Amino acid sequence: MPEFFHVLTPSDAWQRLRSHYRPLPRPETVPTAAALDRVLAADLIAPHDLPQFPRSTVDGYAVRARDTFGASPGLPAFLDVVGEVPMGAAATVTIRTGQAAIVHTGGMLPEGADAVVMVEHTQKADEGSIEVLAPVAVGENVIQVGEDVRQGDRLLAAGHHLRPQDIGGLLALGITTVAVAQPPRVGILSTGDEVIPPDQTPGPGQVRDINSYTLAALTRRAGGEPVLFGILPDRRDALEAGVRRAFAECDIVVLSAGSSVSYRDMSVEVIAGLGQPGILAHGISIRPGKPTIVAVAGGKPVFGLPGNPVSAMVLFELFVTPAIRLALGADPQATVRPQVQARLARQVNSAAGREDYIPVRLEERNGELWAVPVFGKSNLIYTLVRAEGVVRIPLDSLGLEQGATVTVTLYE
Amino acid sequence: MPEFFHVLTPSDAWQRLRSHYRPLPRPETVPTAAALDRVLAADLIAPHDLPQFPRSTVDGYAVRARDTFGASPGLPAFLDVVGEVPMGAAATVTIRTGQAAIVHTGGMLPEGADAVVMVEHTQKADEGSIEVLAPVAVGENVIQVGEDVRQGDRLLAAGHHLRPQDIGGLLALGITTVAVAQPPRVGILSTGDEVIPPDQTPGPGQVRDINSYTLAALTRRAGGEPVLFGILPDRRDALEAGVRRAFAECDIVVLSAGSSVSYRDMSVEVIAGLGQPGILAHGISIRPGKPTIVAVAGGKPVFGLPGNPVSAMVLFELFVTPAIRLALGADPQATVRPQVQARLARQVNSAAGREDYIPVRLEERNGELWAVPVFGKSNLIYTLVRAEGVVRIPLDSLGLEQGATVTVTLYE
Repeated sequence: MPEFFHVLTPSDAWQRLRSHYRPLPRPETVPTAAALDRVLAADLIAPHDLPQFPRSTVDGYAVRARDTFGASPGLPAFLDVVGEVPMGAAATVTIRTGQAAIVHTGGMLPEGADAVVMVEHTQKADEGSIEVLAPVAVGENVIQVGEDVRQGDRLLAAGHHLRPQDIGGLLALGITTVAVAQPPRVGILSTGDEVIPPDQTPGPGQVRDINSYTLAALTRRAGGEPVLFGILPDRRDALEAGVRRAFAECDIVVLSAGSSVSYRDMSVEVIAGLGQPGILAHGISIRPGKPTIVAVAGGKPVFGLPGNPVSAMVLFELFVTPAIRLALGADPQATVRPQVQARLARQVNSAAGREDYIPVRLEERNGELWAVPVFGKSNLIYTLVRAEGVVRIPLDSLGLEQGATVTVTLYE
Repeated sequence: MPEFFHVLTPSDAWQRLRSHYRPLPRPETVPTAAALDRVLAADLIAPHDLPQFPRSTVDGYAVRARDTFGASPGLPAFLDVVGEVPMGAAATVTIRTGQAAIVHTGGMLPEGADAVVMVEHTQKADEGSIEVLAPVAVGENVIQVGEDVRQGDRLLAAGHHLRPQDIGGLLALGITTVAVAQPPRVGILSTGDEVIPPDQTPGPGQVRDINSYTLAALTRRAGGEPVLFGILPDRRDALEAGVRRAFAECDIVVLSAGSSVSYRDMSVEVIAGLGQPGILAHGISIRPGKPTIVAVAGGKPVFGLPGNPVSAMVLFELFVTPAIRLALGADPQATVRPQVQARLARQVNSAAGREDYIPVRLEERNGELWAVPVFGKSNLIYTLVRAEGVVRIPLDSLGLEQGATVTVTLYE
């Protein structure tokens, strides 16, 4: 093993990465209507009150509340109907004592009125007047100016991930463009003399590239822009040239390395040569995925992931996804993934000082949800295809008993 | 109210919709590498075994297992090293009794060999031979032909939502294009004389369109293609023309209707005139969102959602999202949304026979997660912007006590 070999726990490795990687998100301006799932690059402040005029929340009559006090079916309040508030225009009528105006849901409250009586609580007295059968309080059935948002309120903070309702909320205030973080470019390299592109037919001893495409898809999920640099042969000069090109062109580099020891050593040397502080972890106390390299050079994270697909995916989600979120200015750990509770269908062993990630599928048995470990060597991509989620066994656990309740993080 | 007014429970309304809406997904072929989050239109079958040759999972020596039986550091097995398996090529050497060949992780097992000894369990005896210090069983450290997938296996079923690992798994088998369901076109119409486009400045009594954009974003999330038909004025002829155009051009129509009674009645008439079977539910026993129309005409679902943003969003997720998933051929109810358990920060009342949806934000208090209801009239879009999720109160419940444990479905 090279001299700088040091195995860290996942959380120590992340802390070391975090302390050396402090990216500044790069803002770009996009139409708000097209900003779903983007991350805000700056706080947004309300440019005006919402609503900008008092609005009725019901169909009925705008009134002065005190005119209705004590009204009941036996003793209704009589009010003169002096007009109707048109939709989408100012209420021109003014309500004085003893008067009312027809108003529709969403319509503007006319001057002088301070409440709305629902039409269901009224009946026509004659052509120009109504009986009010129940009292309303001041402000009843009215949304006040600024009740939704006040001018100057902070609407959403930098780093916020835009959801459907946020898009609507911003457009309601006329915020038709927003500054969001540019997706970081994530350079992805696969390696191995045995690896060929998926559109080619493997000869004896050859296999098609899996990781470039799985990791590109995970990059998109995390909010990054994958840039594929193809398959590098197992030669130091080719590896170095490929990694340096990705390092120059991208914000984050992910090398899905060949699995042989000689190849891993070569990756370590190439990554170590990229710059300071260099390799932060060489080996993570995790299964699968121990032979992982975490490095930062010249302010950019560089990851050497194991070549087998299960390890590569587990490690990507633990390190690269949060790094992409950091680059976006978002909370790195807030990646909400659906989880369910289930009972473990069979005993799983672990070792103290090692985190284990067990792919599982879910089965309902007598109304109970069971997590069935999908065993398979971590070289098998279909272990993950057959899995519906993953169970984590913590560092200090020696394993889990059959029937134990576990949290399954779902693969969506 | 029009004669066909009938209020249904959310589940009865869905069942009625389901019984009249049996869409056939329309397939289109796309590159597998670009098919993330698409829904498969047909089952996929493995065209060949994976792997196609027996592979070593470690760095070491390919051997005949029986030659190592009983080997130990005190009594090692001596084997002649007769060659090295090159990566990415056929193993040309044949292993006979007493022989071994160098093999790297992922390399092909040579003929005659049936196991691999890890390099760590060997030491060099002299230039051309090794000592094996521990026995291996037949098949040890080897992935057999077809161990990942067998030719003819069903890999993934029609209706499956493609995840990152699925993309990798398909490309591993040379499946470089896939038939996926075309996104259904979802026509979205907003209405109201008071509603103006977001890039305009509201005059007195006017408000900007929120729902078109929130519902378009929700449509994308569900896998549909939103088609915006703009804002319709509150006139029967304009409404009818707009709805008919959307109905002709789209697979699903969503009308976010003005909230006044006269306007709702007009929507009902227009929707009822589109075709058979027509309106299936007019009114859903839910809060917010009661004045909702669910219809099917000529095989297409048509929804009239309440105009206020909170209702529109709750109802969209309950009815339109599953309808879009049906159109994709996916399981309509399998929309996995992250959920967390939390304690309710204050009492919430409901009524028997009505489902309530309460927007909440989450707060950690002394290590416990609390769901704090975001109260606000359902006309307020920022009720949803401030919310981190929603709590459902079932039909038969009269409400929930303060401190009750609730499931919060998170807004991602």
